[in-house]
Amino acid sequence: MALADVKALTFDVFGTVVDLRGSIIREGKAISESKGLNINWEDLFDRWRPAYGKRVEQVSSGELPWANLDVLHLEALEEVLAELGITEFTEHDKHVLNMGWHRLTPWPDSIPGLTRLRKLYILATLSNGHFALLTNMAKHSDIPWDCILAPDILGNHYKPEPEVYHGAARLLDLNIGEVMMVAAHKPDLKAAHDQGMMTAFVPKPLEYGPGVEIDTTGEPWLDFMATDLEDMASQLE
Amino acid sequence: MALADVKALTFDVFGTVVDLRGSIIREGKAISESKGLNINWEDLFDRWRPAYGKRVEQVSSGELPWANLDVLHLEALEEVLAELGITEFTEHDKHVLNMGWHRLTPWPDSIPGLTRLRKLYILATLSNGHFALLTNMAKHSDIPWDCILAPDILGNHYKPEPEVYHGAARLLDLNIGEVMMVAAHKPDLKAAHDQGMMTAFVPKPLEYGPGVEIDTTGEPWLDFMATDLEDMASQLE
Repeated sequence: MALADVKALTFDVFGTVVDLRGSIIREGKAISESKGLNINWEDLFDRWRPAYGKRVEQVSSGELPWANLDVLHLEALEEVLAELGITEFTEHDKHVLNMGWHRLTPWPDSIPGLTRLRKLYILATLSNGHFALLTNMAKHSDIPWDCILAPDILGNHYKPEPEVYHGAARLLDLNIGEVMMVAAHKPDLKAAHDQGMMTAFVPKPLEYGPGVEIDTTGEPWLDFMATDLEDMASQLE
Repeated sequence: MALADVKALTFDVFGTVVDLRGSIIREGKAISESKGLNINWEDLFDRWRPAYGKRVEQVSSGELPWANLDVLHLEALEEVLAELGITEFTEHDKHVLNMGWHRLTPWPDSIPGLTRLRKLYILATLSNGHFALLTNMAKHSDIPWDCILAPDILGNHYKPEPEVYHGAARLLDLNIGEVMMVAAHKPDLKAAHDQGMMTAFVPKPLEYGPGVEIDTTGEPWLDFMATDLEDMASQLE
């Protein structure tokens, strides 16, 4: 298939559309400052993300039973808090922080870029966030999706399992080559490509914090590259 | 639960949000006029609707295997065309007409009413249309849903099967009493009520064509009534 055949764009969300790290650090600081705690939230987040990522892989491999990200995020948070010896958080504090994933802030280019892309394509999430999380996030931050695609409507499969990419095309009633996966992360795009999806790489320089170098190089299997979602719209319009 | 607990509104779509009958008759007339045919589209539609409805019931009862509405609509259309002795339609004509269900026109109150209601609640479809049909329709007519809920993401169950109402609440991560079903049709609302959903009855006087009287009376099990979606917004704001 070719770019001209694409009818729908499916988006990775955490890190690609929303500033996951910055949003969670902001929410965390608000909680710890209100309690007079001095916590290195950058460090805490940089442990939290791989800790929940590991659990997602364990669900994919069958080592853990299906659980949505509210559950996996909370388990991972408790692990990291224990690791850091932080004991001052109540159950309520942890719940509020965990629900911060439903309130992540879009990158500055996201809403203007998506608004323009929506005139050209069906726009859907294709995230490991569950249906309610992605719906709440879109509502909270006015993200203009046409529809929400999530693991809990795709047979409880997490990316990069092939069922996710095929399920997305099936629900949209499109051939998989008529769908283009958009992400800041090459492993997600490579998995999509391997199943026959088109791929758009939109690296996010600040995803891992200021000063952290990210991979912005092309790959022979990438179909499209843009510096951000507004650039993507400009190229496709 | 009470009206104050409601967090999401789920909408019947065909007849409640969009003018199903008027839209299909319009599409049909365009095709038959282009072919110089004289067809009574009002009569044809009034046979088509129960013919596909019967098939939906047969899928629900297990008498027919799962099939989405594109399939059931087309089978029902072919049955009705045969019944009326209409043989002039090519496969392409039938396909175009059948895909008219993806392009149904909202009632005049729908977009303004939904736009206002969306400031207060999560808005979702809860229709027997499948995920792609409802996504395409929303895209075509700018219907401002927060998310699409459809039988093919609810275990291939059709309304009024209980799984549809429970599945909707589960995907939204809400208690079923925090969800209000909005429909012009009492059987849909009664089924939702029986599963613990809140219910809003919004009869559509023109749903079955001009001059056809419809039931607009209340029922003890209805939680809310409005004359249209703008009136609904005015009452709830």
